Amino acid sequence: MKVAKFGGSSLASAEQIKKVGEIIKSDPKRKFVIVSAPGKQNKEDRKMTDLLIDLANTSFANQPYEELLQTIIIRFYKIITDLGLNRQLLDDIHHSILHNLKREQSAADKMDLIKSIGEDSSAKIVSDYLVSLGLEAYYVNPKEAGILVSDEPGNAQILPESFEKIKTLRERSGILVIPGFFGYTKAGKLVTFSRGGSDITGSIIAAGIHAELYENFTDVDSVYSVNPTIVENPKEIKVLTYKEMRELSYAGFTVFHDEALIPAFKRGIPVAIKNTNNPHLQGTFVVSEKKEKSKAVVGIASDTGFSTLYVGKYLMNREIGFGRRLLQILEDEQISFEHAPSGIDDISVIIRERQFTPEKEVKVLERIKEELHPDSLSLQHGLALIMIVGEGIMETIGIAEKAATALAHANVNIKMINQGSSYVSMMFGIDAKDLNKGVNSLYKVFFDDDYEYE
Amino acid sequence: MKVAKFGGSSLASAEQIKKVGEIIKSDPKRKFVIVSAPGKQNKEDRKMTDLLIDLANTSFANQPYEELLQTIIIRFYKIITDLGLNRQLLDDIHHSILHNLKREQSAADKMDLIKSIGEDSSAKIVSDYLVSLGLEAYYVNPKEAGILVSDEPGNAQILPESFEKIKTLRERSGILVIPGFFGYTKAGKLVTFSRGGSDITGSIIAAGIHAELYENFTDVDSVYSVNPTIVENPKEIKVLTYKEMRELSYAGFTVFHDEALIPAFKRGIPVAIKNTNNPHLQGTFVVSEKKEKSKAVVGIASDTGFSTLYVGKYLMNREIGFGRRLLQILEDEQISFEHAPSGIDDISVIIRERQFTPEKEVKVLERIKEELHPDSLSLQHGLALIMIVGEGIMETIGIAEKAATALAHANVNIKMINQGSSYVSMMFGIDAKDLNKGVNSLYKVFFDDDYEYE
Repeated sequence: MKVAKFGGSSLASAEQIKKVGEIIKSDPKRKFVIVSAPGKQNKEDRKMTDLLIDLANTSFANQPYEELLQTIIIRFYKIITDLGLNRQLLDDIHHSILHNLKREQSAADKMDLIKSIGEDSSAKIVSDYLVSLGLEAYYVNPKEAGILVSDEPGNAQILPESFEKIKTLRERSGILVIPGFFGYTKAGKLVTFSRGGSDITGSIIAAGIHAELYENFTDVDSVYSVNPTIVENPKEIKVLTYKEMRELSYAGFTVFHDEALIPAFKRGIPVAIKNTNNPHLQGTFVVSEKKEKSKAVVGIASDTGFSTLYVGKYLMNREIGFGRRLLQILEDEQISFEHAPSGIDDISVIIRERQFTPEKEVKVLERIKEELHPDSLSLQHGLALIMIVGEGIMETIGIAEKAATALAHANVNIKMINQGSSYVSMMFGIDAKDLNKGVNSLYKVFFDDDYEYE
Repeated sequence: MKVAKFGGSSLASAEQIKKVGEIIKSDPKRKFVIVSAPGKQNKEDRKMTDLLIDLANTSFANQPYEELLQTIIIRFYKIITDLGLNRQLLDDIHHSILHNLKREQSAADKMDLIKSIGEDSSAKIVSDYLVSLGLEAYYVNPKEAGILVSDEPGNAQILPESFEKIKTLRERSGILVIPGFFGYTKAGKLVTFSRGGSDITGSIIAAGIHAELYENFTDVDSVYSVNPTIVENPKEIKVLTYKEMRELSYAGFTVFHDEALIPAFKRGIPVAIKNTNNPHLQGTFVVSEKKEKSKAVVGIASDTGFSTLYVGKYLMNREIGFGRRLLQILEDEQISFEHAPSGIDDISVIIRERQFTPEKEVKVLERIKEELHPDSLSLQHGLALIMIVGEGIMETIGIAEKAATALAHANVNIKMINQGSSYVSMMFGIDAKDLNKGVNSLYKVFFDDDYEYE
């Protein structure tokens, strides 16, 4: 059995939903279908979830929301009529929006109720459409599916007891269409996951029913070996391990949020990332272990927006606990760090810039000065990180050479190298201004087979 | 004014002491002379300090020590008579050994008294010899010199108030010869520094009298750019900064123990490392700042005997405080670490092997398992570290490239790279078995100007 999850762009219009229908029809193993809310049809369009959030906020502010409501209803009207489905479905959707807007509940709970209508409606539309194609299909509400969650509006966590209940869905006949993005507390209250939560639902269902494959349908052909906004026409990645996927996602490589996949990863269920618009393409497989050895480097990820906190103190290596006390100060201030290379008299801590407010910055530096008495102390912004990722990196001689050579040839100064913490990645820190030329040069060295240095 | 410190090999025989006399005579600025105990005359010889320690231990064990005592006295006899000095000096030395052996004191205090006789006798011999050359010279006892220390037998620490008293030595006329290695507590008890403590005395006197130069006379022409037991005939280093010196000493680069130089470093006093046997050579200068830019890399240090503690845990980066708690466990077990590179789901901690007993190893691993619940955990021994050191490293593009290329060409797998913590060094971790070929290849790339890869 397979679980197929379709993202917002696959549900944006009748035309797209027809493709979804074709995909489901073409493989009888696709028994579980998880759907997002309708996404954008074009760049100017707005996502259904954003419209619903606006609607909720407008009503909370006691502003007139009729126009917004009309936009939403028209969106659903077009989809439903273009698919030739019964108008009753539209009335049901309209009714549940109005009903939820009028319920006496906290704003947070009401927001979750209204937000969830996008996915819920998509699921009803898709199941009706599959039935219209002559398939045996059912809409299954998350409560019925057994998705029990914690009571944290907008950030629900799955409860472990859910999985036993979900497993029983295997016994049901027909295709089960389940809305993504939300579950129910034990007390029966609807609560949503964090944004992007349809991926979470898909992964939970895949784990619960012990799927042979979890297919994640999106609007790209595959995961690319490097950010396509930095390198033109980069190579596709055919097979990735979970660990490689995770390292790539570390520095801005986001086809989807990798943490959503944890339930599937934990059960060792392979994931396929495919394109609804080109379903015949293989896409990218994410697996726990590769059967065949591929090349040492599978991808290059990169991101900007990092800061370097540098602390120097003569004889630091003699002070047992110095590094630990520094990290304690950061922890007290709720700052997590990416990496903390240390030498005999120095330690540098790499931190996401966004974790600093100007006040926090002053406070952290003050505390370090007062508590650790460093000889030198600085906080520099504008660092970019590049991760070179691949399961073969540790065992392959010459990877560091190739990477350092590529950066030197691009005239990029390496401010930091971190190799050896992870077995599947190597990290370089460079000036943010050098990012594009650095990544392009690395891509050429590792992925362009024709490329040779003159 | 200059402070000249002479190591054991410079005091090992009358012949050597005559060289010391020449050196002092040749520069009237050499007003302060610090001496070690007589060292080895040849490979088979034993150092005076070792003989004295043996003597003390033999007497503590109530074993007959007459033969040992005779060996010591004959050593001094030969030096004194070969220099043509008054025999009265030998009787004084003999008397003070016997006197100290019979004193009613704790073993630790008595050990310090006996150990100190080597340096004390050297100082008396050298001052008498300088007088015999027609120079105005005086033996100055460390108590008289003002070297006040903490009451930690074998590990005395200088007390800050010493420096004011030492400064007054500037006013005295003639050449002052001061024994290295020991000082006195405020209560007047003799206590020795840690082994190699004559360097400490020299550095303290240089700091106290605000010397224009602290000359450290030893038996090598200079500090070498790489360990001469690994690379044949390596280049000499003409000028080093304190920081470079410190980084080089980190991984087994030990002309002398760099921490002994701290008092001199703190006052910015330049240090010259020279050879008693070739005093006309320039030697190596250690300075706070280089006037002229030299090449980016000044030296390569290396050492074996490191372990890697690897901890992997899925979503480690989400657990604020994970790294800090790991370091806390090490701190609790009194284990200091060299370096702790971390990634998204991994952290590796580099630790000196000698810090682990089998019991400690088990305990640390157990605690990590129980308190941090890692997915994977391992402790590997047999790591070697190579440090590439130079003030220009951070600003020079291509250093990492050169180093990684050199290692790749030598077919050495890089297990770890640490760059960015220190501004003056870059660290590579490799298998201990690859150390020689790795260091030789790095040396060629950075120091052999004629070398080019085919």
